[in-house]
Amino acid sequence: MKNVYRVSLLLDLYGQLLTQRQYEILDLYYNNDYSLGEISEDLKISRQGVYDNIKRGVALLNKYEKKMLLLNRYLKQKENLETLLNTIDGIDTANMSDDNKNKIKYIRELVVEMLNDV
Amino acid sequence: MKNVYRVSLLLDLYGQLLTQRQYEILDLYYNNDYSLGEISEDLKISRQGVYDNIKRGVALLNKYEKKMLLLNRYLKQKENLETLLNTIDGIDTANMSDDNKNKIKYIRELVVEMLNDV
Repeated sequence: MKNVYRVSLLLDLYGQLLTQRQYEILDLYYNNDYSLGEISEDLKISRQGVYDNIKRGVALLNKYEKKMLLLNRYLKQKENLETLLNTIDGIDTANMSDDNKNKIKYIRELVVEMLNDV
Repeated sequence: MKNVYRVSLLLDLYGQLLTQRQYEILDLYYNNDYSLGEISEDLKISRQGVYDNIKRGVALLNKYEKKMLLLNRYLKQKENLETLLNTIDGIDTANMSDDNKNKIKYIRELVVEMLNDV
C-alpha cells in the first residue's frame, strides 16, 4: 500500500485522537495534496513547524495502529465484503422462486450498505 | 445495555489505550467479577486507589468512545451480520443447482467467520 494512502486511512480511523491542529495539517498534506510551503503559508507557521507536526502526527497514528490494529481489521472486512458481493453476483437466480430471489436481493443490498459504511 | 457489559465491550475495543495497570484493574472488576476489596488485596493497593482507578479508567473509555464510536459501529456490524445469517438460513435451497448451493454455502461460511471476528 502506498504510504500516502495508508496515512489517509489511518487518519480516518484515528484522526479523532489527534489534536485539532495536528489533524488539520495531516489532512491538508495527505488528503488535499498541499505542499509544506502552502500549509506553512495558510496556517502561518514555519515550514519546519509543519514538517515537525507531520512527522509527529504520523508517528502517533502508527502508534495507535500498533496498539489497536483497526487498519488491519478494516482491510480484512472490506475484502470479505467484496468477496461476499462477488459471490452473490455469481449466483444464477433465473430459475429461483420469487421468495428466494427476494432474499438474495436483500442480502446483496445489505452487503452493499455494509461496504459503504465500513 | 447493562453497564457492566458495556464497559466490558469498551475494554475490548479501547483497552490497549489504557495503562497496563488500569487495564488490569478494569479487567478484574468488569470481566472477572472481583470486588474492590479483592482487587485491593491482590494488587496491594488501597481500596480507594482501586476505586479511583476504576472511575478514571471508565471515564477514559467513555472519552475514547465519544471520539471514535467503535462500540456503535461494532453493534451495528454485529446486527447486520446476524441479519445476513438469518436471511441466508431462510433461503430454500432444495431445488437449486449444485453451483448455487455451493455459493450460498460459501457465503454462509464467510458470514459466520466475520461474525466470529467482529
